[in-house]
Formats: sequence, C-alpha cells, structure tokens
Amino acid sequence: MRLEDIQNPNQLKGLSNQELNQLAEEIREFLIRNLSVTGGHLAPNLGVVELTLVLHQLFDSPKDKFIWDVGHQAYVHKMLTGRMDKFNTLRQYKGLCGFPKMRESEHDVWETGHSSTSLSAAMGMAIARDIKKEKNHVVAVIGDGALTGGMALEALNHIGHEQKDLIVVLNDNEMSISPNVGALHNHLGKLRTAKQYKWVKEELEYLLHKIPAVGGTLAKTAERVKASLKYLFVSGIFFEELGYTYLGPIDGHSVEELVTCFKQAKRTKGPVLMHVITKKGKGYAPAEADSDSWHGGGPYKIESGEFIKSVDGPQDYKKVFGGVLNELAEKYPEVVAITPAMSSGSGMHGFAQRFPDRFFDVGIAEQHAVTMSAGLATQGLKPICVIYSTFLQRGYDQVVHDVARQNLPVTFAVDRSGFVGADGETHHGVYDIAFLRHLPNMQIMMGKDENEFRNLMYTAMQVDGPTAVRYPRGLGVGVPFDEEPQLIELGTWEVLKEGRKCAILAVGPMVQVALKAAEALSKEGISPTVINARFIKPLDEKMLLTLAEKGMHLITIEEHALAGGFGSAVLEFYSENNVKDIVIERMGVADEFIEHGSVSEQRQEAGLTVEQLIQRVKETYNIDRKAQRA
Amino acid sequence: MRLEDIQNPNQLKGLSNQELNQLAEEIREFLIRNLSVTGGHLAPNLGVVELTLVLHQLFDSPKDKFIWDVGHQAYVHKMLTGRMDKFNTLRQYKGLCGFPKMRESEHDVWETGHSSTSLSAAMGMAIARDIKKEKNHVVAVIGDGALTGGMALEALNHIGHEQKDLIVVLNDNEMSISPNVGALHNHLGKLRTAKQYKWVKEELEYLLHKIPAVGGTLAKTAERVKASLKYLFVSGIFFEELGYTYLGPIDGHSVEELVTCFKQAKRTKGPVLMHVITKKGKGYAPAEADSDSWHGGGPYKIESGEFIKSVDGPQDYKKVFGGVLNELAEKYPEVVAITPAMSSGSGMHGFAQRFPDRFFDVGIAEQHAVTMSAGLATQGLKPICVIYSTFLQRGYDQVVHDVARQNLPVTFAVDRSGFVGADGETHHGVYDIAFLRHLPNMQIMMGKDENEFRNLMYTAMQVDGPTAVRYPRGLGVGVPFDEEPQLIELGTWEVLKEGRKCAILAVGPMVQVALKAAEALSKEGISPTVINARFIKPLDEKMLLTLAEKGMHLITIEEHALAGGFGSAVLEFYSENNVKDIVIERMGVADEFIEHGSVSEQRQEAGLTVEQLIQRVKETYNIDRKAQRA
Repeated sequence: MRLEDIQNPNQLKGLSNQELNQLAEEIREFLIRNLSVTGGHLAPNLGVVELTLVLHQLFDSPKDKFIWDVGHQAYVHKMLTGRMDKFNTLRQYKGLCGFPKMRESEHDVWETGHSSTSLSAAMGMAIARDIKKEKNHVVAVIGDGALTGGMALEALNHIGHEQKDLIVVLNDNEMSISPNVGALHNHLGKLRTAKQYKWVKEELEYLLHKIPAVGGTLAKTAERVKASLKYLFVSGIFFEELGYTYLGPIDGHSVEELVTCFKQAKRTKGPVLMHVITKKGKGYAPAEADSDSWHGGGPYKIESGEFIKSVDGPQDYKKVFGGVLNELAEKYPEVVAITPAMSSGSGMHGFAQRFPDRFFDVGIAEQHAVTMSAGLATQGLKPICVIYSTFLQRGYDQVVHDVARQNLPVTFAVDRSGFVGADGETHHGVYDIAFLRHLPNMQIMMGKDENEFRNLMYTAMQVDGPTAVRYPRGLGVGVPFDEEPQLIELGTWEVLKEGRKCAILAVGPMVQVALKAAEALSKEGISPTVINARFIKPLDEKMLLTLAEKGMHLITIEEHALAGGFGSAVLEFYSENNVKDIVIERMGVADEFIEHGSVSEQRQEAGLTVEQLIQRVKETYNIDRKAQRA
Repeated sequence: MRLEDIQNPNQLKGLSNQELNQLAEEIREFLIRNLSVTGGHLAPNLGVVELTLVLHQLFDSPKDKFIWDVGHQAYVHKMLTGRMDKFNTLRQYKGLCGFPKMRESEHDVWETGHSSTSLSAAMGMAIARDIKKEKNHVVAVIGDGALTGGMALEALNHIGHEQKDLIVVLNDNEMSISPNVGALHNHLGKLRTAKQYKWVKEELEYLLHKIPAVGGTLAKTAERVKASLKYLFVSGIFFEELGYTYLGPIDGHSVEELVTCFKQAKRTKGPVLMHVITKKGKGYAPAEADSDSWHGGGPYKIESGEFIKSVDGPQDYKKVFGGVLNELAEKYPEVVAITPAMSSGSGMHGFAQRFPDRFFDVGIAEQHAVTMSAGLATQGLKPICVIYSTFLQRGYDQVVHDVARQNLPVTFAVDRSGFVGADGETHHGVYDIAFLRHLPNMQIMMGKDENEFRNLMYTAMQVDGPTAVRYPRGLGVGVPFDEEPQLIELGTWEVLKEGRKCAILAVGPMVQVALKAAEALSKEGISPTVINARFIKPLDEKMLLTLAEKGMHLITIEEHALAGGFGSAVLEFYSENNVKDIVIERMGVADEFIEHGSVSEQRQEAGLTVEQLIQRVKETYNIDRKAQRA
C-alpha cells in the first residue's frame, strides 16, 4: 500500500505494523515537502502521524467519531480521508482549511480552532449515541496544553462522573521523563491495561475492608508506603480519581504500543484516559530541536530548516508590543504582564527574560488570566493582560464581572484584533468592540499605526479603570516612533485630512485604507475628510457634533462586525443627541463568518479595501448630488 | 464578649474557644431572626459561622485578605466587621448588599456574585504581595460546587504550579461521608498537618530510591497496597498532585479543629488546601433538613419554618418553563435539557424526574454546558441549554465558536433576562442581546408574556440553527395559555395597539409597560402605537419600513444595555436602508451598573417605568409639534 493510493481510511484495515510504519514515513515526507511551500502547523502534525494511522486502522470513521482538539494537528487525518491532493492549497483562500471542517469531509464531525472544546463535544456525542441506542466509539484527542483550559477540566470532571464510554487521548508532547522512570511508567501502564488489572483491583477492594483500623504504627506504615508509591502512580491516580480508566503512558511513535493500547481502550467500559507521549516535530530534525518555532509558520527550506523570510519591511506588531512592554516595565515598577499561553505569539520572550518576576504565562486559562489580573490590580499593580481578541471571548464574563464592574485598572493588550488571515473564521478578532462597548467603566482604543499604538499603551497606564488597547496581527505601517512617547487625551480623535462633504471615520488599520482612498479620490476632485477614530469608547463627541453641524456625510469603517461595532456607537451617539438629517454609512463585517485566506482577501470579501471604500465615497457624493438636485 | 459589642474583628483576638462557641450561637440567632424578615441566603451563612469566627480571630483583616467565592456566605463576615446594624436593609435598595462590596467596608477586598472567581483573585493578591515584598495571608473560601467551575480549576492548577503562599479553604457542604470513614480522614488529616509529616515524606522519598525495581511480585504487591490505600487518601492525593499541602478534612463546626488547622495552614509554606466539612443550615432544623430550599429565599416564620407566601398571582416563569420543557420533551423525543447548576432555579425538577436520561445538570460548568449542547446537536438531538443570562456570559466563546459558527440547532433558554432584583449588579441579564446579536446564524426572541414565551419555545424547535429565547425572572403576566401552542413566523412583530405619530417598540416585559403607558396617555388624547418586538434578531424589517413610511416617531424600550441592544439594531437597520428623517428614541439601561433592590426600583433607576415612558412619549409629541411649528 502506497500513501498516494489511500483515498479512504478503510484501506488501512488489515495492514501490518510494518506497513503502517512505512506509511508513517511517507506521510512525514509528504508533510515536510508540502508545508515547506505552503507553511502550516508542521511540528504538531509530525507528532501525531502514528497516532492518526492507528486510529484510522482500528476505528471506523465517520461512524466512530474523532474529535481533534484545537484542530491544527488534523493534517494527517485529512490526508487519510481523501484530501491529499488539496494540500497545495492549505490555509489559502478557498483552499483546504488548517482546521477540521464539516463541509470538507464527513470524517470531520466537529470543527475546532479554539482549544479545550473536544471533551465537551465528545461527551455530547457519547450521550447522543446512548440516547439513540447506537453503537460507536467517540475519541477525543487533546494536548497536555489544552487540558489546562477550564472548559476541558469542566468536561473531564463531568465525563468522569457520568461514566459514559468515551476515549480521551491525552497527546502529551511536553512531558520530559527520563528513560528510567519512563520505562517504569510503561511497565505499570501495561500492568494496568492488562485484563488482570480489573481483577486485582476488585480483590484489593475486598482486602481493604479487612484492614481493621488505620492508626498508630499501621497508619505510619501506610503513610510511608503510600508516599513512596505516589511517585510511581502519579498520572494514573490523578485521572483515576476523576473516574477514568487510565492507560499509559505509552510511546506515541510506536505503532505496536498504540495498537495494543487502543485495543484495550475499545474493550474498556466507561471513560478511558489514554496517555500518549509524542514528540512535536518528530522525524524532521529542525522541528524536533525547536518545536516552538515550528509549531506553525511559513514556508521554509527543507535542507537547512531555515524559514524563508519575507522581504524587509515595517516592524511586526508582535515585536513592537514586546518593545513597548519592556519600556513600560522599566518606567513603571508596578507593571506586570499576564498572558494565557500567548507569550510567544505576542512577542513577550524578551520581557519574560528581563522581568521574570513580573511575567506570568498561566497556560491556556483565559478566565483565570483575566481575573488574576483584576486581583493584581486591587493591590495597586498595573497589570497588562495580553490576549488575542478571539481568546478574550473566553474571558468575557471575567471582564464584565471582575474587571469592569469593580472598575479596576487592568489594561488589555488585545492582540490580533481584526482579520487574522490563514487561521480563518475561528480566530478573527471582529467581535471585541461589540462585547466590550456596553461595559461601564471600559475604555476602548486602537491606533492608526505602530507609533500610535505605543502612545496609546502609555496613555492606558494613566487611566484609573479598565482599558482595551486593540492592535492588529502582522506588520505595522513602517512609521518612525516618537522619541518620547506621547500621551493622548481620552476621547480625542485626529483629523488627518480636511475635506468636504464627506468624512471617513476609520478605526485602526482602516485609517491607512482611508488615507489611500482619499489620495486616489483627490485625483478625481473628490476630497473626503479622513479622521482617525482612535477612541472607540469614549467617542470624540465634540468632533461628532461638529461634523453634524457641518452637514457632513459620514462613512465609518472598521475591521469588526457591523452589529454593535464602532459604527453603531456613532449611530447611537447621534440618536441620543437628537441629531437627525445626517447620512451615516457603516462599513464593516456583515453578518457572516469570513473563512481563511490572506488578510487582504478577507478584507476584499468583507468590502473593506481601498477600492471598495472609494466606491462607497463616490456613491455618497452621488447621493449628495441627487439630494441637491431633488 | 457579647455579639452586639463587636464592632471590629480585633475584638475577637484572645477569646477562648468557649467564647467563640457562645458567639456562634448568638450569630445564628441573629441570622435566623433577621433573615426571617428580610429573606436572604440563610443556609450558606449558617454553615460558615465557626469558620468565619476563627478566620477573624486568627488572621488580621484587612491586612490579611479574605475572598469569599460567590459571596452569598459573607453575612457573618459582614456582622463581624461593623455592619450588624444594617441587616434590616439586607438586599434592599440602597441597603446592605447580599455580596461583598468594597464601598461597604475595607474588609471587603474583593467583590463576588458569580462563582469560581476567588482562587484567581487570591492568586493575583498573593503575587502582588510578593512583588511588593509585603507580608500577609491570602485566604480564599470556596464551596465544593464552585470548585467545578472551569476558571477555579484553571486557577487551582496555576496556583499549584507557582507555589505561592496562599490558603484555599474548601468549604465542603455536600460530601456525605459516613462517620467511620470521616473519622479516619480526620485522623489522617491530623497526621498530615503535624510537623513530622514533612520529615516522614522526605524519609520515604529516600526509601523509594532504595526499591531496586518494581516488577514481578513486588510490583504486584505494590499495586495491591496502593489500590487499597487509594480510597483512604482520596482527596489528599488529588490536591497534593496539584502541588498543595492538603489539610483535612476537618469538622467545620468545631472551633477547636478549625483553630488547630488554620494555625497549621498559617505556618505552611506554599499553597495549602484546607478541607472543611460544613453543614448548610447548621443550627436551624428546617434549613438543615432542606438546604436546597433554604439556600436563599424570602421571609419565613421562625417557629414553623414556613416561607411566607406572597398572595396568589400569575405563574412564575420558572414554573412556566418547567411545564413547557415537559411538553416539548413529550412531543419531541430528540429534546434533551442541559443546565450548569440551574436546575432548581429554572424549575427543572419535574423534567429531571420524568426524563432522567434526557436531563443533564453538569454542575457549575457553563462552558462545558454550552459546548456539550453543541455536541448533542451534531448528532441530531434538540438540546435546550437552560442558563441565566448573566451566566451565559461565561459560555460566550462557546456560543460563538461552537454553536453559532457551526450553525447548530441549540436552543438557549435564557432565564433571568433583564433586572433580577435583590441579587443586584452581578446578576442582571442586561448584556445578552449585545453579545449575541452580532453572531451569524443566531436568532434572538423574547415574548411579551408567559403564553408567548411558550409559543416561542415551540417556534425555536423549528429553527435549524441556534436560538436564544429570553425570559424574565419572576412572575408572568397572568394570561391564559393557548390550548395548542402556536408557532410564530420568524421576524414578525405584533401590533398590539394602532396609534398615531409615535410607535413604541417594546421587548419582553416592556410590552406591558408600553400598554399601560398607552392606556394612561389615551386619557390625555395621545395615542401611540404599541408594538411587541418579540424578535430581536431577525427584526421585522417590513414593519420597520412601514413605520418609516408613515413618518412615525419611534421609541424603543428594553430592559437591556443601550449600547448594542435592540434599539441599536433598529438604528442599524434604518442606517443600512438609508432611511433618514426618522426620530428614534431609545430607552434602556445607560452606561452604569444598577445595584440591588426590587426590580421596580431598578426599572425606576434605569428610567423604564410606565411613568417615565409616558414622559418620553409626551416629549416626543412635543418634538413633533415643535417640528410642525418650525
């Protein structure tokens, strides 16, 4: 069986372990070759090659359900379910998605992107199966990182309680165990997976009742033995306390061990936690050596393992933020930074090294990150909570209840606000204005470029209350930085270009779009005013009233949902102030999810490009002309 | 020392255990007497009398920080910190809050209401203490129920990892352990709290290294002993694996045990989990017998333990929902109901008894509840996720990412939408329109009365996508129910009264307010149109266009934040459709938190009463007249 012949996972049935190993090698070659061109999540997928092969050999997808937590490790699954020929379009507009997608295949039974959802989904499917009196397996594959997310722990607890048949594969790729202890673990793991284990357990429960009392010497002995044994049974005890049959840990790159263990798991009643140790980047030396850099990335040279750099350009916001954070920490000893597992993504490594005592990466735990920041703020510190817009959704209630309601000076550095490109619809930051704007005490800001972003971060430090400073993913504009950071008065916008008849109120990166549109329009004798609406809350009320007095037609433009966004705030303001007879056009993301692709393709789809804005301005001028004629 | 003399917790220093026991008795009498008049959370507070006394005796509040998870068990704390004289105003407008409030006392260092936030807050305070090189204790008191909340588990994990000095008091009031096992636990707990334990542990770690190999007979023996012992060390092992020193379990009503254990906890380095067993309602027989009913409630007769019933009136929405859920489950075998610990509050007991296999109370685990519902929906079931509006905030990302994005037919029964009365600012349901409205695929509805609520629940069953059916806390209107439930066409509003010049678009309970206002106004010759805006998404676009054509002035009224609410949706609609020259006034909750009191007081404060609407309509008519004159 050659890899290229596999169109359907059924073709894996009956293959020998040796044949599976051969396929594993071909899959790795395929991934390393293809992703060197397209980019993508190489290291996580190299880690689950054998796991995915064995899953598809021993189970019957889609009758049996595989749920891939986070989902960036589902490439092998996609390859084995008839999508190999689409890998040249990976993460590209209208191409193969980097995450499971129901519309791509019946084998994708659940879509992911955000972490820690798989156990809850699996539990729903297991309950549904039992209600419908069907027979099938439900397998959730979750990483050790995702397992720290609160919702995964909620589910782990509930699954253990309900005792439904369900297999949780813990894909543990960070545990570094010395070979010795590891071997012991394996040994005990095998003991546990063996059929005799159940019998032994029952016998010992009987023995337990015969212990007359635990006190005095016996207690002491018991305590001693227990404390000694604890270290041998660490993981097992933890999960068994939660109600799982614990299998493992096993070597996730050994087809043989995987086959044995999955067969046992299939036979076991009730929830099983199968502990599989894998190595991220397995089989590609550069990725094995630095799995963090190779978690997900762009194209690279296979031989040297060098990423192919894009041409030199403006600074990345990630780098800008890292620099600003260092500056702020130097200036304000009260500054501390908290992030739920985004320290690498948000450029915090430098800060973490320089200020280790003021840096807290709490793991995938957004809710905790937000409320811990609030706790820090009660004691007079200046916490900066660094989080992508899309993941701030996970901490929404904590922002409401703990930060805004208590009016605590937590600064949210809301990274990746707006479209995010290749990660697609699960990861866009296009709702945060809508879910933050109605919160009393909250300030919301976004700069037009990286320099203003820096200035707004400084400004946020002066605010005695919660502040969200949004910034986009990717490159800045390339402007120079002010020598000394400038504080900006709250609720003041900036007129970048004075024009006539029509004013464009733009947020963040849309300011550049507006400036370019205005420049192009000026050649046609159309001259809109361009305003940098850097405060989304509070609005620049004075400027809004002036614009109304002048009878300007307004166009608001934002990389955010139209419903409840910045444009709506403008509508609300004029309504509250009884300003009528004003034309306000709002440009933003309509009521739909925008799929993966490049940011510019996503802007195109949402109608947020320079050309589309030019069109809109022209229409506005036409409306105006028509109105004059009427 | 008499209870009435205590103005300050310092006065507790040096009191004997006997004196503390005497105070405990007086505190119970005080609570039972006062709450019989005001109502309140009797049972939880009776459970923590000794715990609170000992805390205030051994620690120095506010230098030492006490964080009360959920916070409804902080009455004793309030009594001991100078607020005894305010208990006659408990949970009343401008009176003593039922939860910790910073503005009430320096001893309230953290405000709660929603559960599971205390550990994150405590961690923030402990980190801040160490950064500032201060010395104080941080104590979080959390119930066993709140501990299942994902954010508490996230924090538990992080605290164990960081090893800060911090005391978690697990107030375990549900664990029913037989006296025998309990005694054993106590015994072992004492062993662990003793200083010698650390030594024993170190000695055994040394011994462990001397075990040559674990295999064959030895392994078997080890396995046997371990399995036997497991049941003796259950809680301890679990928490110790997470990095805590586990103390307990101890009797939370024994001042002596509490003193011993807290003294040990104060001496211990690193995080401590102190496991305290308490009885809800302790000391008041009716509450001990039925702690569920006595969790929180209204006034009662002390002698008989009967709640003082309000006069017979319309059905409570809780009861209506319970009935509707049963009906739906009978009609649709695919209906299943999921709730995160709101089965009692939302009237689901009847359903749980009749359909135990289709009922899932997952505990305090909102995120899991939402995504598990999504998982159920993927398999063709019709999940109804029952959740208060304020707690749906906890599952917001799951609604976005798992439900709306995958367009799954989950029905959210959004209980307690609008003001909630005595629970106050932490519990209002005034943001859900704003955080759901921008989600593609989402429908949002709210009926004008309990009959329409029932009809909308039936309607939701027909929708092949996510639906939120909002309903208020408290009594219905008292209307009869349709014999057969009626399906309502999506996006259709109802004109309840045809009028002139001005139309009131009202949501949910505001429809009754609008009808009453219209009735009163008719006596003055003013006749507004009254519209039941039962669909918030989609809007009744046809009706909106008709209203604009007629040149009506519109007043939207909703028990929800103005920013991003229903009124904003109306503004957005007209803006999108280039409808100008229309006056739209929006009534709703301004940009502030509304504190505890009665719902009618809260409506008064927010400007949502009949009188205030009448005033607004009159102003609108005046605007109109002025406009005509101009």
